[in-house]
Parts: sequence; C-alpha cells; structure tokens
Amino acid sequence: MKDLTVTEVRLTPILVADPPLLNTQGVHQPYTPRLIIEVVTADGVTGLGETYGDTKYLELARSLAGRLPGHPVSDLNGLFTLAGSLDTEGHSTDGTADVGGLRGVQTADKLRLSVVSGFEVACLDALGRALELPVHALLGGKVRDSVEYSAYLFYRWADHPEGVAGESDDWGAALDPEGIVAQARRFVADHGFGSFKLKGGVFRPEEEIAAVRALAEAFPGHPLRLDPNGAWSVETSLKVAAELREVLEYLEDPTTGTPAMAEVAARAGGLPLATNMCVTTFPEIPEAFTTGAVQVLLSDHHYWGGLRNTQQLAALCRTFGVGVSMHSNTHLGISLAAMTHVAATVPNLHHACDTHYPWQHEEVLTERLTFTGGRLTVPDGPGLGVTLDRDRLDRLHRRWLDDDGSMRDRDDAAAMRRADPAWTSPAVPRW
Amino acid sequence: MKDLTVTEVRLTPILVADPPLLNTQGVHQPYTPRLIIEVVTADGVTGLGETYGDTKYLELARSLAGRLPGHPVSDLNGLFTLAGSLDTEGHSTDGTADVGGLRGVQTADKLRLSVVSGFEVACLDALGRALELPVHALLGGKVRDSVEYSAYLFYRWADHPEGVAGESDDWGAALDPEGIVAQARRFVADHGFGSFKLKGGVFRPEEEIAAVRALAEAFPGHPLRLDPNGAWSVETSLKVAAELREVLEYLEDPTTGTPAMAEVAARAGGLPLATNMCVTTFPEIPEAFTTGAVQVLLSDHHYWGGLRNTQQLAALCRTFGVGVSMHSNTHLGISLAAMTHVAATVPNLHHACDTHYPWQHEEVLTERLTFTGGRLTVPDGPGLGVTLDRDRLDRLHRRWLDDDGSMRDRDDAAAMRRADPAWTSPAVPRW
Repeated sequence: MKDLTVTEVRLTPILVADPPLLNTQGVHQPYTPRLIIEVVTADGVTGLGETYGDTKYLELARSLAGRLPGHPVSDLNGLFTLAGSLDTEGHSTDGTADVGGLRGVQTADKLRLSVVSGFEVACLDALGRALELPVHALLGGKVRDSVEYSAYLFYRWADHPEGVAGESDDWGAALDPEGIVAQARRFVADHGFGSFKLKGGVFRPEEEIAAVRALAEAFPGHPLRLDPNGAWSVETSLKVAAELREVLEYLEDPTTGTPAMAEVAARAGGLPLATNMCVTTFPEIPEAFTTGAVQVLLSDHHYWGGLRNTQQLAALCRTFGVGVSMHSNTHLGISLAAMTHVAATVPNLHHACDTHYPWQHEEVLTERLTFTGGRLTVPDGPGLGVTLDRDRLDRLHRRWLDDDGSMRDRDDAAAMRRADPAWTSPAVPRW
Repeated sequence: MKDLTVTEVRLTPILVADPPLLNTQGVHQPYTPRLIIEVVTADGVTGLGETYGDTKYLELARSLAGRLPGHPVSDLNGLFTLAGSLDTEGHSTDGTADVGGLRGVQTADKLRLSVVSGFEVACLDALGRALELPVHALLGGKVRDSVEYSAYLFYRWADHPEGVAGESDDWGAALDPEGIVAQARRFVADHGFGSFKLKGGVFRPEEEIAAVRALAEAFPGHPLRLDPNGAWSVETSLKVAAELREVLEYLEDPTTGTPAMAEVAARAGGLPLATNMCVTTFPEIPEAFTTGAVQVLLSDHHYWGGLRNTQQLAALCRTFGVGVSMHSNTHLGISLAAMTHVAATVPNLHHACDTHYPWQHEEVLTERLTFTGGRLTVPDGPGLGVTLDRDRLDRLHRRWLDDDGSMRDRDDAAAMRRADPAWTSPAVPRW
C-alpha cells in the first residue's frame, strides 16, 4: 500500500522575466514573483504547484507548509482547514485586508485561497504520480482531449524603462491598432490561436475601439474580447458596447463593481459581459448572478482555491446559465498544465481560455508546453505530466534572492513610476 | 500500472422487504425494487453500486451497462455522456416523462441521473479498491470521522394487509402520538439517534401536530422534523408552522411547488423550510434560491447524479446560504455507505441525514452497518468499505425473479388499494 503522507514541503520563490505589458494601473515589472511548491510524500513522490509569489502569499504559504507534513496528499478538503481561519462553511472568519492590484479589493481569504490553490495542485500532482493517474482523472476524467487558449494581446513598450534592469525580447512596441494587429499575427504564426483578447484600459476608449475594429478586419469571424479592467464609467461602457457589439465575443470588466456591471449588462443590447474582477469569490456570486451582471465568468484556479473549487464554480455557472471562461495572470507551465487539466473536465467551458504563457520565455520545467492550433493537448501521463528543471528553478530563485526587494511584490503602478515619476494608479472610472 | 478498464457490468435487480410504512400517497409495498450494480475491471476488481430498481430505471441501467466496458472506472464525467441524451451542458435534450411517486414530476433526466448515480458509486468503489483508497479520499477527503443520522419515524401498521405476501417484524402499529413516541424510543435504544423526523401527510394536520408535540415533550431539545410530502395548502402549512415553530428544526415540503413554498417561507415566522420535492435537479435551483423558497436542501446522491454532483450541490447551497441535509428512500447498505462517504466530505452539512436503513432488516452485504450514538463511522478501508454477500444477493434476486410483476415497480397507492380498494392518491393540497 502506498504511503501518501506528506513528509516535506519545499517553497521556492522566484522572479520571472515579464515584458513591459501595459494595463490601466501601469505596466508589468521586469520581473514578477511566483512561488513554486513541491510536496514530497513518504514514498518519495514529489508533486508540483505554482501560485503568486508576493510577500503576503509567501508568508501564508510558509505557514501552511509547516502544517502539511503528516497529512496525506489525498486530503484536499483538509487544506482549507489547515490554511487557517476559514470556518467549516468555507466562510471568512477575519476581516478584509486590501492588497491592491487588478483583483479588486483583496481579503485575507482571497490570499489564503490562492495559496491553498498552489498546494492543492501540488498534492494532486503527487497523488496522480503516486497512483499513476493524470490529474484530470483525479477530477473525474477529461471530457475533451485538448483545450483551446486565446491570444492575449497587450499594448506594450519595446523595452522596460531606461535604467531599469530587465530582460529583452524581440516583440517590439505595440501602441496603436497596427501594432496590435501585428502582435496578433505573430501569435497566430507562433501558436495558431484563433481567439484574441486585448488588454485595454490603457488608452482612450476610441483608440481601443479602433484596435478592436482593426483586429476584426484582420481576423474576420474570430472571437474577440476587450478588457479595460473596470476603467470605464457605465456610460462609456455602453458607448463602447454599442460600437463593438457586432464584433466582440464578450466585453470583459468594462466597469467596476457588480451594480455598475449589472447596469451595463441590462443596456448593452445583448453583448455578454465577462468578469474576473467583480466576482472572484463564492460570496460575490449571488448578487452578480441574480442581477444579471455577468454572462461569462472567468474562472481562475488560483483565485478560487484550486481545481476542485473551479469545478464547483463551473457547476454554479451551469446552474444559473452563466458561461465559463478562464482568466490568467503571469504564470509558468505548472499553472498552465493545471489550467489545462481542470479545463478538460469542465463540460460547460465554451470559450477559449486566457493565458499569459506566451509572454514568458522563461520556464522552470524541462520542456515548455506547446500550443498547436491554439490548443494544448491534455496530458495523460501521471499527475500534471510536467517535469521540474531544478537548474532553471535555481536560476530564477537566485534572481529572487539577489533582488533588493523592489521586485518581490508586483506593483504595476510603481513600475510605471520608473518611467513616469508622477504616475499614480488612476481612479475609476478613468474614462 | 493498474488496468482500470471496465470489462464487465453485472446488474442484479432485487426485491427488499419493506414494512407497511404510511405516507400521503399510500403505504410502502411489502417488497421494494432495488438494483445492485457490480462493475468489474480488467484487473478483476469489483465495485458496488445501488440505486432504484423499478422497471424504468432497470431499462436505462441495462443500456448504460452495455456502453461501459472499455471505459476506465476513473472516467466519472464520461458516465453522463454515456448515459445518453444529456448534452455537454448537462442539460436535458428530451422532454418530460411523468413516472409519478413522491419525487415530484419526474423526467427522463431524473431517471437517468439516478441510474448514473448507481454506476458512479460502483466506479468509485472499484477505483478506491484498485488504488487502495477510501471513496471519501477520492472525493477530496473526509472533514469528519463520523456522520450523524436521524431517526426516521413513520405512521405504520403492524402488518401488511391480509392476504398480501410480505415479511413480518416486531415493531407493531404506530398510528397516534403514543405510537410515534414509542417508535422513537426504540430508535434511540437501538441506534442512539438524537434527531427525529416524522413522515407526515398521513393524518389530519392536528393529529400530526400532536405527535410532534409529544415527541418534543419526550425528547426536549432534540431536533425534530415533520414532512407531509407537500400535502398541505399554503394556509394549512402556515397554521402548522405557527403551531410548531418553537419545536421544529425545519418543516419539510409542507406544500407543493416552489411558488407555494416561497409563500410559506416568507410568512412562516422564521421557521426554516426544507425540500427534497420542489428542488431535485440543478435547473430547479435558481427559482428556489432566488425566491427564498427553501432554507435547507435535502441532497440525495441518487437524485442528483452521484457523489460528486452532491458535492457540487453542497457548494451551490453554501454559496447561496442554504443549508444542506440528506434525503433517503428505502435503501440498503451500499447506498448507506455511499451517503456516509460523501456526507463526510461536505463541510456545510450541519443537519443529521435521513435514512430508512433501520427499517430494512434484509441486506446484501456480509455485515450490516451499525449506528453508534446515531452516527456511522466513516469507513477508511479501500472503496466504500463494504463486502457483498452473494448468497444474500441471490436470495433477494430470486424473489425478484419469482415475482409476478406486482412488486417490481414501487407504487404506494396500489399497495394501499390492497387494504382499501377505493384508495386513490390524494390530490394536493390534501388539507
């Protein structure tokens, strides 16, 4: 009989090179913190997980890592209890703690669920390896053999601000419709993506409308999305919706907060609204679903507390007739593999998933995951089906160790101030 | 590497002795049909499942059994596809087919989900045995070591009608408050139950109110429930609620249909309403949850399509602040073990589960499951942790083979007509 007991947990914070991608809050830092989690069982099986690596997440992860040894990797429900002050209902027992960012008001629970998520994936990977089953089989089995992803287009600079350390790439700048279409063409050539999402909220809405129109012209009939991260007023959102209704698959988080989203949704002439901002926790669902504020929910296993919670979220969406898509933040291949396994098990996933992965040229795996025709084949080997490259991990961890602290917490506004010292995160609505 | 491929499925319909328990539609037949499902893998591992055995279920089960060989027992999501005309959203692709009974209007989908449920449990049992893991570990791990059940009290006759074949027991009749209290005392003495549910809808509401009051007096402070199976009008429901508000844990299905339940709930002075009638499928949830029609949902893994769907249902309830309890129909130990495994994994299960099990003195297992202090210990052995007794199974199957067809479909009204030839199922509201 296999011994599934956790004997060791290794946490390795890393800094991953990130291009100067623009959003409404600022620009991506040259390096983004991620946390690689290794869970080792008594039989010597190791499972991999990945989540946010900012200091607040790291502190919680260290606390959870200390409590895990002695528990079996199959005890996934127990992770929520071990993670601390969640009561048995899964509700918060503590107050809010705003940690900023594009994720809306963040609470201690949101942080905790993101940490649990990384551990859940590592435990599932270890369990799958020990049992010789793919993670999707541990989630009830895949209902599709490949998962479709979308091209994630960003306004960007060619390089990080002068004087700021960082890696270079050969993408060049994209600051207007032509640049965005060129970027999209490269995504198609390199990965075969058939859906396109533009991160908006960077320029005035007219400019972003023009970019989406240029995409529609360059790729007629392909699903398009625009996501200004809640930067617009209700009226601006409605103007954009009226302009782009015919070409958008959905409009993502045009405005901030569930009541404003509900108002836009009611008056948007049938254009579906998507979110990964006004609904990122289970307690936010009832208001959003009963007011019709969102037609597509962008799941994210990091936000929602893991792959099994993502399946439960999909069941909630299915029950209330809300569509499911998948959100992404800067991440590496462990998270991409996890996204692919869970996406393969969700019957009502009918939109291509977002992923930042093509923007990350660095990896901690021995092999990069490869898109074919915009899709990833669902791995059928044991666990997640990916292998850690310890040299690569060490190199990115070394960067974290050597950092003076300026990159260990992602702060897009601070990154922007390196180019524009007067920059502050714009208040919403920005337009 | 283990070979989890299904090579054989054995279906054994049986007839199980049932006492003359009364409800608003009639009386339990002397024998109730159940179906025992055995799923055998290429490695020779056998998993057990149990579900309804009526002809309509049996026909669907035979169809699914024919499609399962060649698929791995880990492919639980695939069962829904294999079971037929459910589309990839999990929605029905066919119309309704009323098969009567206490389960509300039944549809082909409801039948299909109940059949899938038996197969899912058998696959989980086989998977757990093959992997040497308990079923609860395949469901993410138990959050409690034992599961509380309630005493399921029934008005009943001492014996089935004269001239009707059937087994005898020594419980005697219970047709008034004294009889119900005596029955409850025996449940406590035999099993240690601390919660009590009275199946109502049999006598005029005043008599059933008196029975509940007698229970409250005999067992002060213990949770009490009354379930007339939707037999009352809104006004009658409100009268009963006013009378029993102080002593009931919840009032179960006082009236029929979600709008009527919502009206009662709004005017019941805070007495929670529970249901296993107006909400038995995911599509029925939105109306019920948004109108406040139910405060406690009685899950049933047979109804809802298995143990994993039951977990998703619990997540829906948690999200919308609706409590979770568990419904039971006449069943044997395989289903009781399955109920116990899934109940052990649901954090927000805060009510004792219903079970008919103590009324069934027959079994198909080598050992009966035993309540201690009203609780069942969650089995930690591989799979469900129960063992089939083939001699016992053969005996109950022989009874099914020998039956002239009169018992192969449960029909409480037909059973009542054997005592009262003029009986028809009362229209609702009955009172």
